[in-house]
Amino acid sequence: MKKKLGAKSVIYPIPTVLVGTEVAGKANYTLTGDCGIMGLQPALVYIALHESSYTSEGIRRNNSFSLNFPTSKMMQIADYCGIHSGREVDKSLLFDIFYGELGNVPLIEECPVNLECRVLQNIVIQQRHIYIAEVVQTYVKDDLVINRDGHFYLANMTRLDPLIYSLDNRYYQIAESIGIGYSEGKKFQTPTA
Amino acid sequence: MKKKLGAKSVIYPIPTVLVGTEVAGKANYTLTGDCGIMGLQPALVYIALHESSYTSEGIRRNNSFSLNFPTSKMMQIADYCGIHSGREVDKSLLFDIFYGELGNVPLIEECPVNLECRVLQNIVIQQRHIYIAEVVQTYVKDDLVINRDGHFYLANMTRLDPLIYSLDNRYYQIAESIGIGYSEGKKFQTPTA
Repeated sequence: MKKKLGAKSVIYPIPTVLVGTEVAGKANYTLTGDCGIMGLQPALVYIALHESSYTSEGIRRNNSFSLNFPTSKMMQIADYCGIHSGREVDKSLLFDIFYGELGNVPLIEECPVNLECRVLQNIVIQQRHIYIAEVVQTYVKDDLVINRDGHFYLANMTRLDPLIYSLDNRYYQIAESIGIGYSEGKKFQTPTA
Repeated sequence: MKKKLGAKSVIYPIPTVLVGTEVAGKANYTLTGDCGIMGLQPALVYIALHESSYTSEGIRRNNSFSLNFPTSKMMQIADYCGIHSGREVDKSLLFDIFYGELGNVPLIEECPVNLECRVLQNIVIQQRHIYIAEVVQTYVKDDLVINRDGHFYLANMTRLDPLIYSLDNRYYQIAESIGIGYSEGKKFQTPTA
């Protein structure tokens, strides 16, 4: 039996990203899980922020942002970035930063993976700004890139060790790999009519 | 040091959902990870599908869909739904289904959590249809709902046991909880200038 819980956006688990942008000439970061993939080719992603958020202000001005993936070991500093607005604390010195191809997008050195993103559309739905963006460049820590026949792949998720969130307001770590995509389904026995 | 991998939408980890919809009078399902939260209040979610997908056709007709979260034990059947299009195989008998408030949205009994969704906007970007939807109702397996002082909460992620995906094309399980949101950051020692 199922219980009705009302209208809740219970997607799980939730990836966490530190969204980087420049506001008033300084690097600023916020933590969110309202992000996701919208397409692979072209590489489309989104983040959703409240219209009043400090980061949202920076994104609308620059038309760009970075997505930086904290590891589980960065839980405290990542959560700190989610608790405090850039309006009340200066977060510009929290991380070592580097700049990529757009020039005005701060990328966090300490995060193993960074996406540099350019906004394509800003959709406003009831106080939420949904920024749909194309990924301009992807940066990955050297030792987490696997070179297979001249093609570059991201290392196993357990090595990337992402900080995962869920609507039970808890952080989690990833466990071991249990199977391969577009392959496990071949073992499935379809029911006979 | 970081390596550039080009424009890749490397969001991780990726939740997996079985998207349910009725096409040509039959229940149909596809597996995707291109889904996410866009807001909590109101409860907004999205899924992104290729314009040519069979599910996409059903959604445009009905203006609604369901999100059903497979457990890691459902890996084979979930992957099967991602491999085969509803154009080639009939998936209507794969699951026990129930109907909710919209009437035309098949919900999967075997999945511990189901969201019944009504489309608010369909944004088309380069062959991708991005369906932004409001959650109409949330259904959760009885024994995964926690009643705390009359308020209902979802059980711990480890009990929900989601099937997690990543761009390394592997499925993963969730590990243990390591901390609490909006709390761990209070332990963070800010750098002194």
